[in-house]
Amino acid sequence: MKVAERRQHLRQALIEEAERIIATRGLAALKARDLAASVGCALGAIYNLVLDLDELILLVNGRTLAALEHELAASQADDVACPRPRGAQQARDIAIARLVRLAIAYLDFAAGNILRWRALFDHRMSGRPLPDWYLDDQMRLFGYVEEPLRILVPGASPERRALLARSLFSAAHGIVALGLEEKLHQIPIASLREQVTLIVEAIGAGLEDWPGRVRDEPIP
Amino acid sequence: MKVAERRQHLRQALIEEAERIIATRGLAALKARDLAASVGCALGAIYNLVLDLDELILLVNGRTLAALEHELAASQADDVACPRPRGAQQARDIAIARLVRLAIAYLDFAAGNILRWRALFDHRMSGRPLPDWYLDDQMRLFGYVEEPLRILVPGASPERRALLARSLFSAAHGIVALGLEEKLHQIPIASLREQVTLIVEAIGAGLEDWPGRVRDEPIP
Repeated sequence: MKVAERRQHLRQALIEEAERIIATRGLAALKARDLAASVGCALGAIYNLVLDLDELILLVNGRTLAALEHELAASQADDVACPRPRGAQQARDIAIARLVRLAIAYLDFAAGNILRWRALFDHRMSGRPLPDWYLDDQMRLFGYVEEPLRILVPGASPERRALLARSLFSAAHGIVALGLEEKLHQIPIASLREQVTLIVEAIGAGLEDWPGRVRDEPIP
Repeated sequence: MKVAERRQHLRQALIEEAERIIATRGLAALKARDLAASVGCALGAIYNLVLDLDELILLVNGRTLAALEHELAASQADDVACPRPRGAQQARDIAIARLVRLAIAYLDFAAGNILRWRALFDHRMSGRPLPDWYLDDQMRLFGYVEEPLRILVPGASPERRALLARSLFSAAHGIVALGLEEKLHQIPIASLREQVTLIVEAIGAGLEDWPGRVRDEPIP
């Protein structure tokens, strides 16, 4: 095997081992020494494969974001089979139903991959900013929320729509995050699904009188 | 000074020093050794004052919850001067405005006390469950959200109202938490205020057809 090829293999093994540790024991359990022992290289050799632990964690988190994106995309897929909406109200109802399906897909992903999902939010870079590829991966997820908003707030500028998508995502994230938080009295998943549905439906219905509620002025 | 009195003084100094460290450098910077040096006692003597660092952090977080509660209560105070609502719609509008003021008060508290506020969510107990007094302090905050919900969802059972209050709080928390998160593109506070207002108003308006939207069945 060529050197570059062997390095690539080792790097892949390192990422998968880091993912396994994060998924089973959580981000805080990730230690360079254990990783080196598991993939069978010297401690210092890890840093020939990745820049530092931050980069390794971002590579794992990038895979988590990709897996999440897969679920979000799947939640929208059955729209293809939907008949064309017959009127403005039906189009709105379909858009709200799509938002609900996105939120439920997010909840189910978080509940089913809780330690990997927590690592997305618990990881802090030590010093460096987040690389562009990772920021792009994050922002792409908001795009799924923006699509139904084209129907629900057709008058919004792209900047306002993007901001609103982020707020909607954040609201659903808040319900999921505090609902799955064991520090508070934990909420059963069926109840949590109902709450996410209720709040997202209420937001969708309540956005009806946009832009009466918020004028489409420049963002402060 | 009597021994008990001196112990009480030292304990108070320890709590205040821990709060100072959390407020200025964050929860992760809290170390027993530094605390002992600052309050002028031996390292082991700390554990005559508090059971462990968990208890000390909870005492600090309890003060943070009390400060937050003060702001939430203040945000509702000017209701006293309000005229009695003249009809059902006006009563709903006032209830929605109260929810918005609670959410804005929460945002402003978080933005103005960011490291103390983060410590509320970042702290994890090592082994023991949270004590009842702390759980009670947490739950009391949800009570502020429940009050306006009496007007907005009058048919809801107390259990459903409590669950909905928690979801509403969580939604606002999500917007605040991800909005103030420096990992994502940070949102200016004026924009964040507008987004919180928009989403909470939308939820309030969208709850109008409760219980049509969610039947008041037993909680799953």
